[in-house]
Amino acid sequence: MSDLNVYELLNRKRRGGPLEPREIEAFVDRYTTGSIPDYQMSALLMAIAINGMTAEEMATLTQAMLRSGEQWHLRDQYDFVADKHSTGGVGDKVSLVLSPWVGACGVKIGMLSGRGLGHTGGTLDKLEAIPRFNARLSRDQFQRCIDEVNCVISTSTEGIAPADKKIYALRDVTGTVESLPLITASIMSKKLAMGASSLILDVKTGSGAFMRHYQESKALALSLIAAAAGSGTRVEALITDMNRPLGIAAGNANEIVETIEVLKGNGPADVEEVTRAQAVRVLVMSGRFDEQSAVTALDDALRSGRALDQARKWITSQGGDAKIADDYSLLPQPTETFEVRAPRSGFITAIDTYQAGMFTVDLGAGRKKADDIIDYAAGVMFDRRSGDEVKAGETIARIQLGHSKRDAEELRKRFLSFVTFGDAPPPGRPLVFEHLK
Amino acid sequence: MSDLNVYELLNRKRRGGPLEPREIEAFVDRYTTGSIPDYQMSALLMAIAINGMTAEEMATLTQAMLRSGEQWHLRDQYDFVADKHSTGGVGDKVSLVLSPWVGACGVKIGMLSGRGLGHTGGTLDKLEAIPRFNARLSRDQFQRCIDEVNCVISTSTEGIAPADKKIYALRDVTGTVESLPLITASIMSKKLAMGASSLILDVKTGSGAFMRHYQESKALALSLIAAAAGSGTRVEALITDMNRPLGIAAGNANEIVETIEVLKGNGPADVEEVTRAQAVRVLVMSGRFDEQSAVTALDDALRSGRALDQARKWITSQGGDAKIADDYSLLPQPTETFEVRAPRSGFITAIDTYQAGMFTVDLGAGRKKADDIIDYAAGVMFDRRSGDEVKAGETIARIQLGHSKRDAEELRKRFLSFVTFGDAPPPGRPLVFEHLK
Repeated sequence: MSDLNVYELLNRKRRGGPLEPREIEAFVDRYTTGSIPDYQMSALLMAIAINGMTAEEMATLTQAMLRSGEQWHLRDQYDFVADKHSTGGVGDKVSLVLSPWVGACGVKIGMLSGRGLGHTGGTLDKLEAIPRFNARLSRDQFQRCIDEVNCVISTSTEGIAPADKKIYALRDVTGTVESLPLITASIMSKKLAMGASSLILDVKTGSGAFMRHYQESKALALSLIAAAAGSGTRVEALITDMNRPLGIAAGNANEIVETIEVLKGNGPADVEEVTRAQAVRVLVMSGRFDEQSAVTALDDALRSGRALDQARKWITSQGGDAKIADDYSLLPQPTETFEVRAPRSGFITAIDTYQAGMFTVDLGAGRKKADDIIDYAAGVMFDRRSGDEVKAGETIARIQLGHSKRDAEELRKRFLSFVTFGDAPPPGRPLVFEHLK
Repeated sequence: MSDLNVYELLNRKRRGGPLEPREIEAFVDRYTTGSIPDYQMSALLMAIAINGMTAEEMATLTQAMLRSGEQWHLRDQYDFVADKHSTGGVGDKVSLVLSPWVGACGVKIGMLSGRGLGHTGGTLDKLEAIPRFNARLSRDQFQRCIDEVNCVISTSTEGIAPADKKIYALRDVTGTVESLPLITASIMSKKLAMGASSLILDVKTGSGAFMRHYQESKALALSLIAAAAGSGTRVEALITDMNRPLGIAAGNANEIVETIEVLKGNGPADVEEVTRAQAVRVLVMSGRFDEQSAVTALDDALRSGRALDQARKWITSQGGDAKIADDYSLLPQPTETFEVRAPRSGFITAIDTYQAGMFTVDLGAGRKKADDIIDYAAGVMFDRRSGDEVKAGETIARIQLGHSKRDAEELRKRFLSFVTFGDAPPPGRPLVFEHLK
C-alpha cells in the first residue's frame, strides 16, 4: 500500500488512463480508513464521473467497496437465497409483493433495502407504516427471518460497505452523483456484500425513473450486471416502465394496502404483471423451476391464498402487526382526503411521473432531505391513469393528507398541472421492456 | 453569494456546461475565505482540468483570483511601467539582463518573480547569489526602487493573490497541475495583481521548457494573453527556444557572472538575442519607441556602458553588493570544478535540456522540494553547445560544485548521458519563433 502514488494516479485518471486493480483497492481502502483525505477522493470521483471507467475498473471498484465492510456470503449458508433491487420509482411496491409471493413458492429471498429520497419512495418507509414493523434488523435477526419464514427486508447495517457510505456522502456534495460507474459500484457493493445466490434487478425507465431515457436505463442495467462479474452472485435485469406511477397508490400506508390487495388477487394488473415478471426470474434462477412451472407455482400461490398467508408470517416475523392484512384501519389513516375531478372529458394521455413523485413527497410521504420525517398516511390514489377515458367532473384522484393541513384548491391545481388530457388514448406501452443477463 | 448553488455548479461543470462570472467569483471568494471546503474545490479543479474553460471563464477565474488579495495598480501610478514573465527554462537569465537594459533606456520595469522548482532555475535564487541582495521587498520598498532606479525584481508578497497560493497547493496534491486554464489563471492572477502597463511573456518551448511541444507552448501563450482581456495591462508574448540551455552558464552565481558579461557586451550571443527581442517589445509597448528606435536605444545603452551602470544602481538599490560587477570573486565560488571532455570528435547534436536542468538541480543549484536550500556556487558551464564542433578530449563543460562533495566520474558519466554527438551539425533552429499579441 505504501507504494501507491496518489498524485500520479490522479494525473493518469485525469488524462483518461486506466487504473490498476491494486491501485483502486488501495485508494478505497486508504480513503475508508482516513489516510487519503476527502479532497483527493473528490478529485478522483470527478475524474471518474467525467472520464468513465472500464468494466474491469468498475468491477474492481465494486469489490473494493464491498470488501471495506462485512461480507455475509449468504449463498454459502443456504441452498439458494435470492436478492432483488429496484432503481426506484413512484408507486413501486414490487419488493413488498415479490417477497411473500416468492417465499410462498418455497424460495428464500432477503433484501437489504433503502429509504426514500427525492421523488422515489422507499421500501423500508412503506414497511414502517405497518405498526411495530422492525426494519432495522441485526444480521442474526435478518438470517433468522430467512430461516423461519423464507423472506426478510431490512435496512443495510452499519457494517455493510462503509466505503460506499463515505463515498456517497462525498459524491452528494461534489456534483458526482450522476456517474454510471459510481452509481453501479454504490448499488452493487451493497448487494454483493450480502452475497445472495441470485439478484434480480428492476431497472426503471421513464419520467419517474432515476434514468429517464431508455438507452441510459439499459446502460445502467448492463453496467450493474457487468460489475457483478466473478462475484458468485448470478445477476439478471428487467427494464420496466416508470413513465406512469406503478399501481394506483403512491405513498406509504396506502401502498401497503395495495400490496395486500395484489396478494389477495384484487390488485392493479400492472403491479401484478411487473412483480410476476421478476418473480418468474427469481424462481427460474433458483434452479427449481423452469419458466412454465414458475408461472404455475406463482399462480397457485396467489389463488390458494398462500402468498397472502406468507405475507402475514413475514410481517409477524419482523415484529409487525399482521392483522393489518384483514383490517386496513389498523394502518395510519388520512386525516383528510381531497378528490380531484377531471376538468374535461377525454383521455388521460400522460402523468409526469417525476412531478407526481415530488407531489407525493411534498405531502409528507417522502423525503427531500435525509432527515425529513415520513408522514405515513399521506399519499395519492391515482384512480384514473394514463390511457383511461374520463368524464368531466369524474373523480380521477384522491389526495390523502396526514398530519399537515393543506389548501385543497392549491393541491388540486398542482395535481392537474402534471396530468395531460387529450381526445384519444396514448399509444400502448409495455410494462416490461427487456430481460438482460 | 448566498444564492450560489455549489452542487448544481459542480454538476454543470462535470457535464462541460459553462459557469457564470458571478459563480466563478463567488466560488473563489468562498474558497479563499474558507466557507467552501477543499473537497469541493478539488472536484471543481478536476472538472476544469478535464473539461477546460472558455476564454471568458478563464479571464473571470484570473480576475477572481487576483481580487482575492492586494491590487497594486502600478499603471495608475506611473506614466508607464513594464512587467515580464518567463514560463521558465535552463540558464534563463533573461529577466536579469532585461531589467537594467530596459531601465537604462528610461523605461521603468518591475517584476514580482518566483523561485526555482524542478528542472528550471529561479530568477530570485540567482539574484540572491549576490551578497546582501534583498529579494524580499515590501510593496513600499518595491515602488521606491522603481521610483529611484527604474527597475526592481522581488518575490511576490503574501498579499498578492492568496487564492492562487491556496489553489496551487491543492492542485499540487490532486493531479490538477497540468491544466491550461488553471496554469493561465495562476500565472496571470499574480501578474495582473501588480497591474503593470504592459507585460511581455517569454513562453519557452522545447525539451527544457514547461511545455515541450510547440503547439502546447503557443496555446499557453494565447491563453495567457486571452486571460488578460479587459485587465488594463497590455500583454504580448514571444515563443522562444528551450531545446538547449540558454547561454553557457546554468546555476546561480555563474548566471550572475554571465548576466554582467552580457551587459558588458561580452555575453553569449543567444542570451543577448533573446533578451533583445523582449526588450524591443517592452520599449515599443511603452509608446516612446518604434521598433527601429528601440533597437538603436538598446544598442546605445549597451555600447555606452549605461546598461551595466544601471545594473550596478539596481543591485545597490536592493541592498546588494554592486562591486560584484567588477570583481566576480565576490560571488560564491565553486569549491571544485570537474571538466567534462568530448568522448569523440564530431558535433554536439543535442543536449536534453530537461535532463541538463535536473542535473544542475542535483548539484544543489535548484530545488526538488520547495524547502530545499540553494547552493549558489553550484552549476554547470556548457562551454560547447548544440551545433558546436568538438575534438575528442576537448573540454566541453565544467561542472561546478559548491558545498557538497561528489564523485567526478559519476557526474561526468551522467552529464554525457544527456549529450548527443554526431558527424554533422543539427539543423539550425531559431531562438525566437513567434511574436503573439
